[in-house]
Amino acid sequence: NTTLTLQNNSSHIYYENLLLGVAQIRQLKVRNNTCSIYPYFRAFLQDCYGEYRYGAEDRSDFGLRNKSEWKYTSAPSLSPWYWGSTGLYSSGGYMFNLPKSKQESVEKLVFLRQNSWLTRGTRAVFIDFSTYNANVNLFCIIRLVVEFPATGGALTSSHIYSAKLLRYITYYDYFLASCEVTFCLFIITFIIHKAIKIVKLKKEYFRSAWNWLDLLLLVVSVLAIALNIYCTAAVSLLMEELLSNAHVYPDFYFLGSWQVLYNNIVAVNIFFAWIKILEYVQFNKSTRLPSILSRCAKDIIGFAIIFFIVFFAYAQLGYLIFGSQVEDFSTFQNCIFTQLRLVLGDFNFDTIEAANRVLGPIYFITFVFFVFFTLLNLFLAIINDTYSEVKADFEVLPSQELRIRDFFRRVSKQLSTYLIYFKIRGGILNYITHKDP
Amino acid sequence: NTTLTLQNNSSHIYYENLLLGVAQIRQLKVRNNTCSIYPYFRAFLQDCYGEYRYGAEDRSDFGLRNKSEWKYTSAPSLSPWYWGSTGLYSSGGYMFNLPKSKQESVEKLVFLRQNSWLTRGTRAVFIDFSTYNANVNLFCIIRLVVEFPATGGALTSSHIYSAKLLRYITYYDYFLASCEVTFCLFIITFIIHKAIKIVKLKKEYFRSAWNWLDLLLLVVSVLAIALNIYCTAAVSLLMEELLSNAHVYPDFYFLGSWQVLYNNIVAVNIFFAWIKILEYVQFNKSTRLPSILSRCAKDIIGFAIIFFIVFFAYAQLGYLIFGSQVEDFSTFQNCIFTQLRLVLGDFNFDTIEAANRVLGPIYFITFVFFVFFTLLNLFLAIINDTYSEVKADFEVLPSQELRIRDFFRRVSKQLSTYLIYFKIRGGILNYITHKDP
Amino acid sequence: NTTLTLQNNSSHIYYENLLLGVAQIRQLKVRNNTCSIYPYFRAFLQDCYGEYRYGAEDRSDFGLRNKSEWKYTSAPSLSPWYWGSTGLYSSGGYMFNLPKSKQESVEKLVFLRQNSWLTRGTRAVFIDFSTYNANVNLFCIIRLVVEFPATGGALTSSHIYSAKLLRYITYYDYFLASCEVTFCLFIITFIIHKAIKIVKLKKEYFRSAWNWLDLLLLVVSVLAIALNIYCTAAVSLLMEELLSNAHVYPDFYFLGSWQVLYNNIVAVNIFFAWIKILEYVQFNKSTRLPSILSRCAKDIIGFAIIFFIVFFAYAQLGYLIFGSQVEDFSTFQNCIFTQLRLVLGDFNFDTIEAANRVLGPIYFITFVFFVFFTLLNLFLAIINDTYSEVKADFEVLPSQELRIRDFFRRVSKQLSTYLIYFKIRGGILNYITHKDP
Amino acid sequence: NTTLTLQNNSSHIYYENLLLGVAQIRQLKVRNNTCSIYPYFRAFLQDCYGEYRYGAEDRSDFGLRNKSEWKYTSAPSLSPWYWGSTGLYSSGGYMFNLPKSKQESVEKLVFLRQNSWLTRGTRAVFIDFSTYNANVNLFCIIRLVVEFPATGGALTSSHIYSAKLLRYITYYDYFLASCEVTFCLFIITFIIHKAIKIVKLKKEYFRSAWNWLDLLLLVVSVLAIALNIYCTAAVSLLMEELLSNAHVYPDFYFLGSWQVLYNNIVAVNIFFAWIKILEYVQFNKSTRLPSILSRCAKDIIGFAIIFFIVFFAYAQLGYLIFGSQVEDFSTFQNCIFTQLRLVLGDFNFDTIEAANRVLGPIYFITFVFFVFFTLLNLFLAIINDTYSEVKADFEVLPSQELRIRDFFRRVSKQLSTYLIYFKIRGGILNYITHKDP
Repeated sequence: NTTLTLQNNSSHIYYENLLLGVAQIRQLKVRNNTCSIYPYFRAFLQDCYGEYRYGAEDRSDFGLRNKSEWKYTSAPSLSPWYWGSTGLYSSGGYMFNLPKSKQESVEKLVFLRQNSWLTRGTRAVFIDFSTYNANVNLFCIIRLVVEFPATGGALTSSHIYSAKLLRYITYYDYFLASCEVTFCLFIITFIIHKAIKIVKLKKEYFRSAWNWLDLLLLVVSVLAIALNIYCTAAVSLLMEELLSNAHVYPDFYFLGSWQVLYNNIVAVNIFFAWIKILEYVQFNKSTRLPSILSRCAKDIIGFAIIFFIVFFAYAQLGYLIFGSQVEDFSTFQNCIFTQLRLVLGDFNFDTIEAANRVLGPIYFITFVFFVFFTLLNLFLAIINDTYSEVKADFEVLPSQELRIRDFFRRVSKQLSTYLIYFKIRGGILNYITHKDP
Repeated sequence: NTTLTLQNNSSHIYYENLLLGVAQIRQLKVRNNTCSIYPYFRAFLQDCYGEYRYGAEDRSDFGLRNKSEWKYTSAPSLSPWYWGSTGLYSSGGYMFNLPKSKQESVEKLVFLRQNSWLTRGTRAVFIDFSTYNANVNLFCIIRLVVEFPATGGALTSSHIYSAKLLRYITYYDYFLASCEVTFCLFIITFIIHKAIKIVKLKKEYFRSAWNWLDLLLLVVSVLAIALNIYCTAAVSLLMEELLSNAHVYPDFYFLGSWQVLYNNIVAVNIFFAWIKILEYVQFNKSTRLPSILSRCAKDIIGFAIIFFIVFFAYAQLGYLIFGSQVEDFSTFQNCIFTQLRLVLGDFNFDTIEAANRVLGPIYFITFVFFVFFTLLNLFLAIINDTYSEVKADFEVLPSQELRIRDFFRRVSKQLSTYLIYFKIRGGILNYITHKDP
Repeated sequence: NTTLTLQNNSSHIYYENLLLGVAQIRQLKVRNNTCSIYPYFRAFLQDCYGEYRYGAEDRSDFGLRNKSEWKYTSAPSLSPWYWGSTGLYSSGGYMFNLPKSKQESVEKLVFLRQNSWLTRGTRAVFIDFSTYNANVNLFCIIRLVVEFPATGGALTSSHIYSAKLLRYITYYDYFLASCEVTFCLFIITFIIHKAIKIVKLKKEYFRSAWNWLDLLLLVVSVLAIALNIYCTAAVSLLMEELLSNAHVYPDFYFLGSWQVLYNNIVAVNIFFAWIKILEYVQFNKSTRLPSILSRCAKDIIGFAIIFFIVFFAYAQLGYLIFGSQVEDFSTFQNCIFTQLRLVLGDFNFDTIEAANRVLGPIYFITFVFFVFFTLLNLFLAIINDTYSEVKADFEVLPSQELRIRDFFRRVSKQLSTYLIYFKIRGGILNYITHKDP
Repeated sequence: NTTLTLQNNSSHIYYENLLLGVAQIRQLKVRNNTCSIYPYFRAFLQDCYGEYRYGAEDRSDFGLRNKSEWKYTSAPSLSPWYWGSTGLYSSGGYMFNLPKSKQESVEKLVFLRQNSWLTRGTRAVFIDFSTYNANVNLFCIIRLVVEFPATGGALTSSHIYSAKLLRYITYYDYFLASCEVTFCLFIITFIIHKAIKIVKLKKEYFRSAWNWLDLLLLVVSVLAIALNIYCTAAVSLLMEELLSNAHVYPDFYFLGSWQVLYNNIVAVNIFFAWIKILEYVQFNKSTRLPSILSRCAKDIIGFAIIFFIVFFAYAQLGYLIFGSQVEDFSTFQNCIFTQLRLVLGDFNFDTIEAANRVLGPIYFITFVFFVFFTLLNLFLAIINDTYSEVKADFEVLPSQELRIRDFFRRVSKQLSTYLIYFKIRGGILNYITHKDP
């Protein structure tokens, strides 16, 4: 996708993206004899390099033993492990920085090849570098990975983060900053408010699910704020280090993954904030979703047990029959997702028929009939039945339409906080989303 | 798709399509320093060209400064802006016409390249030309676009209009013309009819939704007629200009977009005309769709509030988690469409799993269970329940089957207008649709 | 797919397929000035060749005027027209046979090219030839088509029939033949039986829908038998002609299309035979599908009117907005199919969004909400409600379980005929299906 | 996917996979005149090689007649036949082993080509070899197939088994072995337990469907154990043979297919074990799925008869109309699967429209209306109605909530067996699945 045009002096990619510092290359190896050779084969095979696991990692010096690329460097604590196609890789390894110029880099790589830097024990090679685009004020943190599974061959993958690590440049950014400060103040007010409420109500407070939701929101918010502060500080430190020496590799990958974690926390936070709105929309009889759900809960749980037994039975069947042939059934979790997608209509019948010409079609037909036709319709029947009952019950009660005014008063009081925050985050995310280099 | 075979004299494409006048090339630039460089990077980066916005446009002369391609030309008023992949581009810019011969065109482009016509500030280049195919009497208005986003790289796109700008050639066309005249007379009669009715009934008239629909239809029809007249006149003017000088660029793109606007207005008009038929099909008890819908309106609105809160909560979650990785979640609107498509069964699970290996599957499973299984079935339960009630109610009332005769009398009176018009438009559109060059 | 390896003597394709006689090439032209040039363009354009229509066909001699390829040959009556991408082509034209040897064929084609056999008026070129595979006793009738639409460019397509024209070779074939004779006898018996019944019951007979189905089956069966006899005779004649002169083009295409017609008649016949079984499965109360359907017929018809008004309103909207951009909406029929596929979940949202960025999403969302969510669920509600009623009614009636014995007696009496015939056809079709060369 | 890098000495593929012994190449031929040539064609065609069937196999010597590749070798009994695209191939044929070195192998193949080893009668060529990967202790058994159908041309396919034939290497394997022993003991206990019960209850025992399920589970378990023991023994024998002579072809394909059969038996076994859990979850009224299903059984069977008559009628129609053009309708079974996929939403409308422009759309529309809209909704109506009835009935009965305790006692007693076994198999399969070389 991105052609590297490392010019002599400027190190720009596509003219607009500045390469930050230099690229780092790192490999992970496993020790010999990390698996046992069956006696029959000991005559033919001397070496046995197992799959990558942290315990099987080779940490001894090898080759020329004179530089960092031949010596094991331990992983810094807190740095994230990489989840590849065939394993979870630690962040240590045999690593070195590429020189700044293209010519020297090629020479370095040729030299390593001549000295067999990649061995039979090599299980993964990582190439890490970061770029900065001043036009849109975004960092692009890139990791290219080649995995060498124990089965032979090579698998390539890549991981790209686009993150706005330097905030607060334009006036709009300063507006966002002020919003964030407001949000912090809100959260503090909330904490005090809730603390008083807990002291007052004691155990009573913890009986309502909505209060639990409030607490969850508070905890997640505080976590997000802390993470945000940490990231901002870490970027400053890293930037100063980078400016003092341009030939160093700056570990933005580490920051990128924290940023993603932060985004996920915010996402979950806002999701629950949306769900909290449901608390305020109970003014209408028939919109009492919770009451309908709690009413048919017993039936639904009973049904769900049956549904999941049959569903898991099919997942297990699919896993054992197609698991070694079809990617969609390669793990038990994948089987569950595949079956849900079958229910939605997104299914590849040809592959399961190719995998097993007899059991494939039987699996498909019986699944469609028992799960799609019968169980899903039964689920519908339960909800249908309960809705009629709940409605019949509420028709006896007096109308509660007056609560609408209440609703808006209460909502406006609390929602404002979340809406402001939502707007802030939306702005930032919007920025990030539209400009992946 | 279309190989340009510009022959010396005739300028035909594929032998059958006449190139109208010459092609125009236009670029849009942004000024330097339209974004702010963070202090850390001021040592490495001097220039900063922001994303394209109308405000950031560079309008000063550059390069040789002697011809139109080096001088900014303002956009003519009313000409439509172009909605590209990364922005909404104005219709001004640095523009020039290509010469008529292929050889001279190549020389021109080589010359521009040598003088660096495309700069780092260039954000979009447009190539516009139009062709006419006499065999099918259709204009083909072509715009080729290359966008240079602030992130580096280039994005190509194209925009092609096929429009029948010259109408009234064959006898069938003249028949259509007479239909259009009839339609205008009908509309005038209608306006008078409705005006009298409004004067008579006053405020009473505006209480029925069907009357509002009538007024809407009238307004849209009048608009369509006005636009139609304008387009026909504009084509004549443009054609005469073109005939007097073959080396000019004729701006059919402008006309093409008006034509598309006109088609859309007609499309919406006919859609509401179809919906209006529903007014006349109330003769049967059980076909009283409006009565069923109005009956369960309160329940459905209540349910819809819950549904949309949960639906938007998920859309927000998807936007923040997958937004920067998955195209389908790149904007909040896209998230809504993606989730609707998930409900219909058109969904790409692999990409969201690749984007986030933990939250992706959780998002998918909880969405399927809460929205697809529970909320949609609850919606069905509400409609089911209400239908039973409505039916039970109507069974008590006396039969109204006699109204069928009424129905046909009323329908035949009013429908004729729309049917004629519908036939006219169908004919024209049919023509256009089947012959995209 | 199939590489032509015309060897000097044997004319085999893939070693196993014998080329029957020689290939025929045929072109269709339209006359000049079959469309009118708008006055503005008369200076630039002299010629105007319209789209292909039978009326616009050019039938005059051209070029060298000395051989069949320069002279128009009328279409033999009864020979089928070809339904191409842009028109329905007659089976006449300027035609010639290719020589038997590859070298001479190339020379012939070069000669035609030098003499401009293809002109601006050419609208379609057909290359027809047939092969026979003795291993599986199948004819393969191949038509390669190049269409030159009035818009310029060229569209290629192909049409391949695999047909077992020579039947009755192996012993199994003779068994099938005896089955076919038996079937004819059955049909004659049936006709007599039904004739007697009609004479007896007179008008009474025509009141039952099942009797109409019986008559339909008889008529279609007689038609199929007649067609079968005709095809068998025609093949014999054609084969004898071919054997006497190997340098002639044998028109198997003609036979192939009759064969397909015959297959379709048989398919429809067997379909109705299956449906007829429903007549005999009325022994159980709840399986009285017809009674349920006739019970809710009035409601369903009323609902269907509303459903189709809304459905067609959307189809019309989609046709006018997206018709000229998206293939799936290019005709009104396509719009209907596309919307049905949307309901099933097979839909390409991206293309309609690209075609119209504002109305595309509005169309999609409102369609999903009004048609997919509301109208389809209302349809379900109607069936659900009626089923409850019908069931409640039947529970009052006495059980009719005893009819099962009746059922089998009646079924066995009549079904045998169809089953035998079904087996016959299945065998033949099975043969054909598995061996497309 | 796998580049063969046969090094002189070691015969490794991708460095990590040891080639076991040598590869074997085998062809199957049919006799001349295995089909009859129609009299018309006897002048043109002398030879006729029918499709592959066991009866039509050529078993006579041919070519040089001096080595195994020119002499027919009968298939060993018990070795599995190969199910290719166009037939079921026996495991005999003209076979030979490739030499160990690459150079000699090429020479051998060139020699065979010069002597026309592949003839017009050749119907299939198989290349079999196996590799062993010590890193993950997996055998990879590979069969590459080229089929030469009677219609001419060639079809390639491949078949790959990944199997853990050598078990019990690591400590974890020994743990699995001990689990397997435990499982066998459990099964023996079970058999005794059930035998006593049968003797006690006699015919009474066979009246419950759950008891039949128990017996089924026992039989399948015993079968799996026997197969497991057989496979383990066969591998040992084969390995010893291989070690004594490296130039022999070891028939692991044979073992691979037994292994797959064994896996399938285990999969079905565990599936029924899951279903058996349903016996214990009858404590709640509404979870009595069996009672609901048995209640509406009569209605559902009646409905199912109608459903399948209509469904098969459509399948037959689709088969006869589209069978020879569309892959998805090429057999009657495929038609059934295709129609089920249409109901789920995975359907390719374009191909059936291309196959028959008139009947294709009619088939599609009527299928969607009658089967998707009407019959499926009727099915839902039946389940809905029955659920309401069943619930109403059970509400009269006293609560049986107390059975939950019972449930867990019973479940824990029996489930433990299956859970342990499930874990074992899961471990093994997991191993296999993740490491296909």
